[in-house]
Order: sequence, then C-alpha cells, then structure tokens
Amino acid sequence: MNYKLLGRILGKIMILEGILMIAPLIVTFIYQEFNKNVYPNGGIKNILAFAIPIVVLFSFGIALQFPKPSRRSLYQKEGFALVAMVWIVMTLFGALPFVINGDIPNYINACFETMSGFTTTGASIIDYDITSLAHSSLFWRSFTHWIGGMGILVFVLIFIPESKDGSAMHLLRAESPGPQVGKIVSKMRATARILYLIYFGMTALLTIILICIPLIDYGNPAISEVVSSKNKVFHAFLMAFGCAGTGGFGFIPGSIQYFTPVAQYVVAIALFMFGINFTLYYLILIGKIKDVFRSEEVKTYFAIIVAAVGLIFLSLQLGNLIDTLDYSTEEAFRHSLLQVASLLTTAGFSSTDFDVWPMLAKMVLVICMFMGGMAGSTAGGIKTSRFVMAIKGSYINIRKLINPRYVPKAKFEGKLLEEKTMNDVFAFFTMYAFIFIIVMLILSFDPVNGTTFYITSDAGANREVTHGFFTNFSAVASCMSNIGPGFEAVGPYASFNGFSYFSKIVLTFTMLIGRLEILPVFILFSPRTWKKI
Amino acid sequence: MNYKLLGRILGKIMILEGILMIAPLIVTFIYQEFNKNVYPNGGIKNILAFAIPIVVLFSFGIALQFPKPSRRSLYQKEGFALVAMVWIVMTLFGALPFVINGDIPNYINACFETMSGFTTTGASIIDYDITSLAHSSLFWRSFTHWIGGMGILVFVLIFIPESKDGSAMHLLRAESPGPQVGKIVSKMRATARILYLIYFGMTALLTIILICIPLIDYGNPAISEVVSSKNKVFHAFLMAFGCAGTGGFGFIPGSIQYFTPVAQYVVAIALFMFGINFTLYYLILIGKIKDVFRSEEVKTYFAIIVAAVGLIFLSLQLGNLIDTLDYSTEEAFRHSLLQVASLLTTAGFSSTDFDVWPMLAKMVLVICMFMGGMAGSTAGGIKTSRFVMAIKGSYINIRKLINPRYVPKAKFEGKLLEEKTMNDVFAFFTMYAFIFIIVMLILSFDPVNGTTFYITSDAGANREVTHGFFTNFSAVASCMSNIGPGFEAVGPYASFNGFSYFSKIVLTFTMLIGRLEILPVFILFSPRTWKKI
Repeated sequence: MNYKLLGRILGKIMILEGILMIAPLIVTFIYQEFNKNVYPNGGIKNILAFAIPIVVLFSFGIALQFPKPSRRSLYQKEGFALVAMVWIVMTLFGALPFVINGDIPNYINACFETMSGFTTTGASIIDYDITSLAHSSLFWRSFTHWIGGMGILVFVLIFIPESKDGSAMHLLRAESPGPQVGKIVSKMRATARILYLIYFGMTALLTIILICIPLIDYGNPAISEVVSSKNKVFHAFLMAFGCAGTGGFGFIPGSIQYFTPVAQYVVAIALFMFGINFTLYYLILIGKIKDVFRSEEVKTYFAIIVAAVGLIFLSLQLGNLIDTLDYSTEEAFRHSLLQVASLLTTAGFSSTDFDVWPMLAKMVLVICMFMGGMAGSTAGGIKTSRFVMAIKGSYINIRKLINPRYVPKAKFEGKLLEEKTMNDVFAFFTMYAFIFIIVMLILSFDPVNGTTFYITSDAGANREVTHGFFTNFSAVASCMSNIGPGFEAVGPYASFNGFSYFSKIVLTFTMLIGRLEILPVFILFSPRTWKKI
Repeated sequence: MNYKLLGRILGKIMILEGILMIAPLIVTFIYQEFNKNVYPNGGIKNILAFAIPIVVLFSFGIALQFPKPSRRSLYQKEGFALVAMVWIVMTLFGALPFVINGDIPNYINACFETMSGFTTTGASIIDYDITSLAHSSLFWRSFTHWIGGMGILVFVLIFIPESKDGSAMHLLRAESPGPQVGKIVSKMRATARILYLIYFGMTALLTIILICIPLIDYGNPAISEVVSSKNKVFHAFLMAFGCAGTGGFGFIPGSIQYFTPVAQYVVAIALFMFGINFTLYYLILIGKIKDVFRSEEVKTYFAIIVAAVGLIFLSLQLGNLIDTLDYSTEEAFRHSLLQVASLLTTAGFSSTDFDVWPMLAKMVLVICMFMGGMAGSTAGGIKTSRFVMAIKGSYINIRKLINPRYVPKAKFEGKLLEEKTMNDVFAFFTMYAFIFIIVMLILSFDPVNGTTFYITSDAGANREVTHGFFTNFSAVASCMSNIGPGFEAVGPYASFNGFSYFSKIVLTFTMLIGRLEILPVFILFSPRTWKKI
C-alpha cells in the first residue's frame, strides 16, 4: 500500500472539509447564534462547534502532506479503499459540530445523521422539533447533501496532480454512481470540471427560483409559530442543497408538507432534473441535443416516471372512492408527482403521509426506491441503466435457450452490450439482494421490533404504527438506495431514532455501501487489500 | 415445432394422470363414499369425480398417440416448452375431481389448489373445515405432492423411447430443480430409474414409520370430534406423501399442530432427508460414502440448518423472557427444528403459529424460504448450491478488483467453478428478483389489501390480522419457493382464499415459475418458440 500517498489525499480531503465548514460558521455569525440575547439557545458553543473541527481538520490535513510518497500513482484496489475511507473520515469529522453544540448530543446519532447527509440519504434520527436546531446546524446538515451529491473525491480530483497510469480514473470509477462512467473517462479532469460547473449552475438557478416563488405557507397555523418568513432565503438555500444532492433532509416540521403547491411542483421538476445523467447536460451544452433524445436511459427514465405517476394517481383516486383518502384531483396529482420524484431520485422529501396510501401506490413507491435515478446523476438506487441492461440480459438468456445458435446483438445506448457488462450487472443485483437480506437479518435482532407507538401526520393525529417487517424492509431499502424515509415505523412522519445504536451503526454503513455501490466498502475492509503483493 | 411428438408425449402424460387417479378412486370405494348411509356427504358424485376425468384423460391421451411424428427428437426449446405445458395440462385435469364432487366448487380455486399440489407448494384456498372434504379428495390432494415431487416428466422419461440427440436430456434439464443435473445426466435413464426407486423406497419406509409411531394426538378435544384414530393408516399415507414431495397440505385442522411430539420430530428429520440431493443417496447405495461427506452442498445445507435452528431457538427463548411467548425449552427446540425443516425444505407444515414469533425468528424463516433445499431434491426454493456459487462468485469479483491479474480458481464440489455457471447463477438471482417484484406489484392491485380479519390459532383466539406488505411479500416468496404458508394474512392459520381470482391465477403461475425455475414457463409463452426457424 502506498500509505503516504493515501495519507496525502486524505489530508487534502480533510483540508477541504475544513474549508467547507467555514460556510456554516458564517451562518452562525449571520444569525448571531453566539449571542444569547438574539438567540435563546445561543452561546460560544455555536462558534466552537465549527471552529474546533476546522482547526483539527486543518492540523491533521496539513500534517499529512509532509511525508513524501515514493510512488505517485495508486493501484485500483488502493483507489477503491481510499474512496471508502474518505467518506468515513468525512463523516467522523462532519459529525463533530452537532455533538459540540449539543443539537445531536450522541456521537453515534450524529454520525448517522452526517453519513445520511453526505450519502444524500436524508434519513434522520431527529424525532424532536427540527426547528430547535441552530441555523448553523441546519445549514451544515443540508450542505452535506450538496457536498456528497456529486461525490467528494471527484471534486478533489480536479485539483490533485494527474498521473498517467489512471490513478484518478480508479477513484472516479469507485465513486461515480452507475455501471459505467462512459464518455467522461477520456478527458476526465476537464469533463469533471464541466460537470461540477453544471451542478453548481443548476443549484444556483434553483436557489434563485426558490427565492422568487412563494416557498412555504408561512401563515399556516401548524408551523407559523416556529417558522418565520424572515428566513425565506435561508430556506431556499437549504431546499436547493437538498434537491441538488437529491438528499431529503427536512428543515421545517413536516418535511415539505407546508410548502406551497407551486413550490412543490418546482421541487418535483428540479428533482427529476437532478436525477438525469449529468453528461447529458454536457451534451446539450455542446449542442448535441439529438444524442440526448436518442439515449435509451433517458427514454426509460421518463417512461418509468409516467408509469409510476399514473399508477399512483389511479391508486389515490381509488383510495378516494373507498373513502380511505380525501384528496382533490389536483392534490392527488401533485402528491403522486412529488412522491415519485422524491423516491425515484432517492431524495426522500414527503408532501403527505404516503404511509397511509393504498398498497398499489406504496408498492409503486417501493419499486421506485429500488430503481433510483440515472447513472451519473446525484440520485442513488440501483440506477435506470442497470435495470435496462438486466432486462436485456435476461431476454438474451431466454433467446439463447430457444435457439442455442443465437448470437446476441443487443445494444445499449447504441453500443453492443458486452457479455462482461451484463454479467457485472447480474452480479450487482445478486450482491445487492444478499446485502439487503443480511442487513435485514441484523436489524431483526433489534429489541425495537414489534414495539408500537403513535405518530402525528396530516393523515390524522396519533396514528398507531408498529415496527414490523415492512419497517425493516423499507429502512434497508431506504438506506441502501440513499432515500431517507421508508414505511411504517420509519415512514415520512417517523424517524430512525427508534433503532438501537448497533442498528444505527449498521445502517450508517449500509448508506455508504449503497452510495459507493457495494464494492469499495468491501475492498476497504478486506484484509487482502492491505497485504503486500 | 414437432407438434405430433409433443402431442404424443403430452398424451402419454394424460394417460399416466388417468392411471394415477385410480388411486383416489380406490379410496372412494374403501371409505364407501358413494353410500349416503356410511358417509353423510356421499353419493355417486364421489365416484364420478374421478371416473369422468379418467375417461377423458384416457380418450385424449390415446387419441394423441395416433399421429405419427416425422421426427423422433425434440429441440431444446421444444423440450422446455413441453415441460411447462405438461404441468399446466396436469393441473387443468387434476383440478376436475374437486369441482365435480363439490369439495372445491370453483374451478379457479381448484386449479390453484392442484397446481399448489403438483408443484409441492401446499398453499391452500380452503378456509373452511378441511375434514369436510371427502377422503378421496384429501388423498388426491396429498398424492399430487408425491407425484410432483420428483417431477412428472422424469417419470415418463423412463418409459419413452430414447433418442440419441438428447431430447430426453432437454426435458430432464428443464424439470430438475437446481442449477445442474450433474452426474445423473450421463446414463440418464438408468439413473432416473434408480432415483425413482430411492424416492419410492424412502416414501414407503416413512409411511411404515408413521404407521408405527403415535402419529396424531387423537384424544385432543380440539380435534377429537372430527379426526378419528380409525384413519391412522390413511393419515400416515397422506403425511408421507406430503413429506416426500416436501409439499405441505394439511389434512386435519391445524396443519401438524396436533401431531404428537415424536411424530413432529420424525417429520422434521424426514423433511431434512427429502431436502437432500437424491444422487447422494445413490452414492451411498453404491458405497461411495466418502463422496457424500466431501460434498460442499451437504456441508452448507447442514450448516444452514444448525445456524437457523440455533437463531430461532435463541429468539424464542428471548420471546419467552419478555412474555410474548410461552414455550417450554423442549417445545421451543421442537418448533424451531420443525419450522426450519418445514420452510427450508419448502414443505410448509406448521406445528405452531409462527406468525406471532419475534422478528428475528420470522426473518430467519424468511431467509430459509428463499434458500430452499439442495439441488436434485424434491425441495423448492433457490437451492443451496446456487447460494454457495453466488457467494463464491461475489468473492471472485472482489478479488479481481483488488488484484486485476487474479486468476479465479474457486471450486465447487471439487470442480473448477466455470465463469458461465456463475453468470447463470447471477442471472437467475436477478430474474428471480424481477419476477418477485412484478408479482408483488400485480398483487397490490387486489382489493383485499388493507382488509383486516380475525384468525384463531394456538396463539390465542381471534387474533387480528391485516393484509399488508408482509402478506404479499411472503405470499410471493411462498409461491415462488413452493412452500405454502407465509406470514400475516397468509400465515400458517390463514389461507390464500382472500385473494381475488385474478391474483390467484397469477399466483398459480408463480408456483409453476418457481417449480420449473423460471425459464421453461417463459419459453412456453414466448412467440419465438412457436415460430418456424
């Protein structure tokens, strides 16, 4: 192992995290959260919360730059292990502010929340009033979504020295969502920069739009006491971070239930757009619009959206008919659209308590949770392209049995679908299923199973919920696909706080496994990786 | 397509089914079920129930022998399509007796029940008193388990003329459970005969044992009024059929809850033995006992059993501690052993209401449901060998990423694990997951979702059960793995009768897809199969 180079890159990441933490520190000063007269829960702790980690990160980060690595390149395994390590280190330090300012006093909970942020999951352990958190905490929490959305290392890649043997490519391969990096590999650095610019630009545009439109129904008696329209710009920023990273942390009570309908439509469209492969925006920028419309993944993605929204809309209308639901047609459409956007792109915002929806609607949402967005987007999940390839691969297998002399010529995105790619996709599904069931087995040890509690949602006060099979199933799906809420006891109006600390640690790693698409995490923890070869 | 040869084989199958139906007809005469004085619900209909189908099957079967096929061999696709067709035809005719004698008046229900029998699933739509069925019906119902256990076509294979080009092998490949047929392929016919002899012998031995031991607690007030010890031999036969085929149809109230403890232990051991690859018994017979102990699948199979029983036993003890359960240590061990035997070998008998067990125990059972028994046994499920291969394959994938020059040399059963075999296994898991989720989506349309009803079990009278996500999940798992019961609304004390007819038809095909391991059913319904090439 090239420990010195690993340490050097890790150090750079730590410096970067320190720099990024300056942003919430500025928020502390804007809201004068050090001043007890302005902010009741204020005090010096709100400055220290970020100042201490910044100092620590800088010290470690700079110290790690001194040992001179003998070799300036990384093997593939080192690249994969590094990526997993970087995300863990980012989380361990990123959780400190919450512990120091006391907003999330328990370190394990804080790590869960931070990993949930960086991996753009949005699952939360906060089962108390979200507005009791400091503005700086809320800002950092949502900011982690934005940081994690495009990948931490890809960002650093733009700055680390390029080597000729593809070290950088190993990192990119390990961190990029989806089965293939495709076109961006060739002139990687330049393209990564462009992709980041697109991400930056789209986030900025969304923030401006959210500032301009009526965002939250501030007058609503349910929230008017704790949420003030004075914070509208702040809210717009947080929402833009959550949408861009397809994260999903809420920052006012009830997720986005009290957002205005127009804001909810904007959010839905924004989410769909951030669930698209970013290289397609690049193609649009360089004028190759035709290529975009020719993309199979785009077509499939939109076909899935239309089908899912249609089925859920139908299901909600049937629910209206039998009086279990009471939505107007516009509401039914809006909630259908928004929840599909939210769960398919794996953001996890909720505009209503979808846990009380009819089984058909819930099942469609479950399928959306597994699918996720397109490869190369900020969305999590298994990815549209993998589904397309798996279906084509299965078709080829059947054709081969019907006619053993059949020579497969299935194409994907205009290129012949190679057998190796298809087999990798099949292997991915299998490993995904295995990890899924193992994590479910671990969760079933938790004493929380079978307990019953009450939650309050727009579907009625004090609805009884039991922590059952569907809770664990959707919790694992939600963490592995980096979504956030699930169903039943981890539904949109519940939290993950019911789980034991052990389960929370397991779910924290599940989020990382999902975000890095399984292999890097295993490579990091494989003894063979650390053996000399 | 070689329609004439297909018809000829199909005709032979029909004649066979006609012959097999003579057995329940004899039962009618033994119990004098045509005589209203002896049997209150009797009448000529109980004779006609079997006589009519026998005549019809013979007529069709013989008629189909006349067209002389020009080609005496089958292509692979024809073999696969034929296998699926045979099972459907067997079911369509096998369901007639229940409709004619009125025990299951609805034809769709009767087909569900018959397919459940032949595929050795054991899922039942009978939500009324099981003892209200005629003895002949009960016999035929359990007999279908035994017939389906070893495969219908394999049986016929022994009698149809051998062709040199491997037609028979195509059939065997399509119907045999597990990823590979292995050693039996070479001298197929002779070996198939030996396997059937082993099956026959083991069933006979089990029947004798069940007759000799105290079988059912006939004095128990819960059943003493409807179940008489005069029928002990009858009960022993039915139970032996169910165990041998790893079926799972109950024939007295409460599945095997009222069996004596000693009988329950015998059943558990018998089930484990029928879940073992039958070629291993052949190896024992020819004295190659060492080969058996060297078999990786055997070792894994028993390791899974020990782990599963241990975890469930632990879970039940914890359930005892917190007073949700009240089992003695012996009971806890017996129920753990029996339910693992029952669900791992995909039989589906229940000795207690495992739906009220703690989550850990339920989750272990769910995993057992997916795993199933060994390849080449009468058990369903994904099969132990596929799990071993998938884990080895995943390991190889990780090793390759750690060291790109790594040359995989993983072995299975002493032979090098070929990449093609591994990829087939991965593809199988993927297709399994896809079909699973599609069937779940279809079931979610059913209006039964969300309905609540009461069931009576040994866990207490009138326990409330809601048809939710876990119901559909376990119903699909149960049908695809050919088990029988699931959880919640399809739990061990509930039935599948709540589903709509449409859902029942879908589940009927799901059982067939599970039994034939996916591909034959798709090939049968693929238009390309029927095109001239």
